[in-house]
Amino acid sequence: MIEPREFLRAKRERQPHEPRALREFVAAYAGGRIPDYQMSAWLMAAFLNGLDADETDALTQALLHSGRVFDWSALGRPSADKHSTGGVGDKISLMLAPLVSACGVLVPMVSGRGLGHTGGTLDKLESIPGFRTTLDPDQLREQLDRIGVVMVGQGPDLAPADGLLYALRDVTSTVEFEPFIVSSIVSKKIAEGAKAIVYDVKCGSGAFMKTVERARGLATRLVATSRSLGANASALVTDMNWPLGGAVGNALEVREACETLQGRGPADTRELTLDLAAEMLRLAGREPDLAAARRRALEALDSGAAWQRFLELVRAQGGDADVLERAAPLHPAPVVSLVPSPEDGIVAGCDCFAMGELVVALGGGRRAKEDAIDPRVGLVVLRRPGDRIRRGEPLAELHLASPDSGAVERAADCFRIAGEAPPAGPIVIERVD
Amino acid sequence: MIEPREFLRAKRERQPHEPRALREFVAAYAGGRIPDYQMSAWLMAAFLNGLDADETDALTQALLHSGRVFDWSALGRPSADKHSTGGVGDKISLMLAPLVSACGVLVPMVSGRGLGHTGGTLDKLESIPGFRTTLDPDQLREQLDRIGVVMVGQGPDLAPADGLLYALRDVTSTVEFEPFIVSSIVSKKIAEGAKAIVYDVKCGSGAFMKTVERARGLATRLVATSRSLGANASALVTDMNWPLGGAVGNALEVREACETLQGRGPADTRELTLDLAAEMLRLAGREPDLAAARRRALEALDSGAAWQRFLELVRAQGGDADVLERAAPLHPAPVVSLVPSPEDGIVAGCDCFAMGELVVALGGGRRAKEDAIDPRVGLVVLRRPGDRIRRGEPLAELHLASPDSGAVERAADCFRIAGEAPPAGPIVIERVD
Repeated sequence: MIEPREFLRAKRERQPHEPRALREFVAAYAGGRIPDYQMSAWLMAAFLNGLDADETDALTQALLHSGRVFDWSALGRPSADKHSTGGVGDKISLMLAPLVSACGVLVPMVSGRGLGHTGGTLDKLESIPGFRTTLDPDQLREQLDRIGVVMVGQGPDLAPADGLLYALRDVTSTVEFEPFIVSSIVSKKIAEGAKAIVYDVKCGSGAFMKTVERARGLATRLVATSRSLGANASALVTDMNWPLGGAVGNALEVREACETLQGRGPADTRELTLDLAAEMLRLAGREPDLAAARRRALEALDSGAAWQRFLELVRAQGGDADVLERAAPLHPAPVVSLVPSPEDGIVAGCDCFAMGELVVALGGGRRAKEDAIDPRVGLVVLRRPGDRIRRGEPLAELHLASPDSGAVERAADCFRIAGEAPPAGPIVIERVD
Repeated sequence: MIEPREFLRAKRERQPHEPRALREFVAAYAGGRIPDYQMSAWLMAAFLNGLDADETDALTQALLHSGRVFDWSALGRPSADKHSTGGVGDKISLMLAPLVSACGVLVPMVSGRGLGHTGGTLDKLESIPGFRTTLDPDQLREQLDRIGVVMVGQGPDLAPADGLLYALRDVTSTVEFEPFIVSSIVSKKIAEGAKAIVYDVKCGSGAFMKTVERARGLATRLVATSRSLGANASALVTDMNWPLGGAVGNALEVREACETLQGRGPADTRELTLDLAAEMLRLAGREPDLAAARRRALEALDSGAAWQRFLELVRAQGGDADVLERAAPLHPAPVVSLVPSPEDGIVAGCDCFAMGELVVALGGGRRAKEDAIDPRVGLVVLRRPGDRIRRGEPLAELHLASPDSGAVERAADCFRIAGEAPPAGPIVIERVD
């Protein structure tokens, strides 16, 4: 058994931990044999003095093995999943999971809830009447075997040490540290049984990573740590200087996802879904290269197979698929206000962080874990970067629980109108493989 | 009320705390409104990112005001005390407190127990049969008024936040950090009501500070923080590359202290006592300058006034003063072994740390707070640096609970015998004022 004081002293003195010692320390903490006050001192020491690649891998292993690790190999099909670091309007999982599943790859997707300015896949799914995001392990296996896809929340037996550690990081201001972020993400993805993982690392005003360099660093580390734990992995660094698609807000995003699955929907949302699906199909060994994988994904999307798989998934988890098929608003907001442009010009930019915060303020997200979500509220962006606009023409629709002129002003302030447009960049900035 | 996460984030980002915010944080911790796990993360952040002078002063104030602060001004005499950072064979307090008291300055001395390789004044005093180191506040005031000196342990109401914080530092490897050490020392000295404080900062192989530079840094900070809290203060940086005096071990040191108070005893012990007494008398305003203060101290020592005051003190606190007056061994050890020199040469050095550790191993000190002390055991050094010695001649006497040839070897290993002697340096290396 590791001596906690010696272990703390080592990190205090910038010495790297032996992987085995680090695993023992975390296991002892998860087992209640090391108290919070020693773990929190270590969290701060690691935050300030760093953890190297081997330590990050060891921490990830320790979190992974603190709970149940699913293995779907007995189902006889490859498995894959995607993780996004979180963006504004990011509803990609809603299309991607059924699409990849429709291509013959199991998708045992475990998602989180929204906190702060980014939404969460579970919150979006729960705006579908009846949809259950909790399945017990037997139900999970049965559904995965039968329809090839599940979309659930993290059960208490999946990497429980990660939950304990996250709670302690939250109250000790040690959240924003790459090795902690990597170990938390990767341990959960590996625990759910995905053998192939693509990471969508967001970059820009609406993302945790503001620069391409930092996003690339995180992407590289996510891929390397996943491989050290035996999974195939790659990553896309993608642009988050503009909301993904047009809709931001839970029911609005589900509606946009349904449109995209039916061949309509915004181009960026469709393209990113296909690019991520191609990565997953290749990593899972379903296709030999990205080009073939993308063709297969495109076919599953355009044939309606992905849409049908999504409806199957919704029904399997208790959701009302009929309401989705009717193409009517899912949870119509009582008030829809147009957001007028304050001036003539060209739509030049968006403060995605401010937009995400606005949706939280409207009730569409959470500041604290226990906050309730209003599925109706949100915003639909009507213009794209480079569009010409005249003063008074609408930039966006704001979906509100009640009239709110302050919110309309805040929404207008999210946009930048200028004399000329910046060059429109691609949604996928780079691949990390 | 300070938000603990914001407070932690500030130190994580190397921002200095507002003194008021730091005081609030510590007060909230002492009041149980901030949990250990947030305090321990802060301890590590402060250890690694530093605390400046203003923050150190604020931390000291917070510890001070977590409990009772004595004020003896109603007794109509000045008050003074000394704190030593801890050395091997350091029995100075036993002579110094009665000596300064005999010169008309109140000495409300609060001392600690030994832990690790250095002894503690309370342990030494408790080797006097019957001596009580616990007095309630009324007894303390009465005795201080009547005989001008008390020597007690830290009661639970004196800087209780320091005790809480020390326990947390101990288990999180954040003990050895100058601002924490300074705040802990100074808050207790100010709390006991001393208005004039001299610090004896040890430097060398037997001390926490190994170099003069680091000792000077600590001394400077102790003096500055004491002044910021309204006390007069100065410091001496003193040599701890050789044990102070000849005796190391509890009863042996009390006996040597009695000899010194009676005009015998080793020269270094006598000189350092007089130098520290002179600082205290000057700081307390009893004499206008150091030279006059030293003359007054010398007179009180050579007249026997200090010795009589010590016997009064011992009687007042329930101790057997008669046994001290008889000049017989206080707690004779069952076995006294001579430690022979392994070779011919000149006595050139001593590993004081190893010697302190040896006395702990014999039972004369503590590894853990709950260990019992054997007052009988220890060591009397018979030679001084520069002495010629022949192989087989005794370097020291070892006082043992039972025969132990391994201990004799370990004792011999503490000494360095060489072809020539280093220049013998002064006991006081420098003054910090």
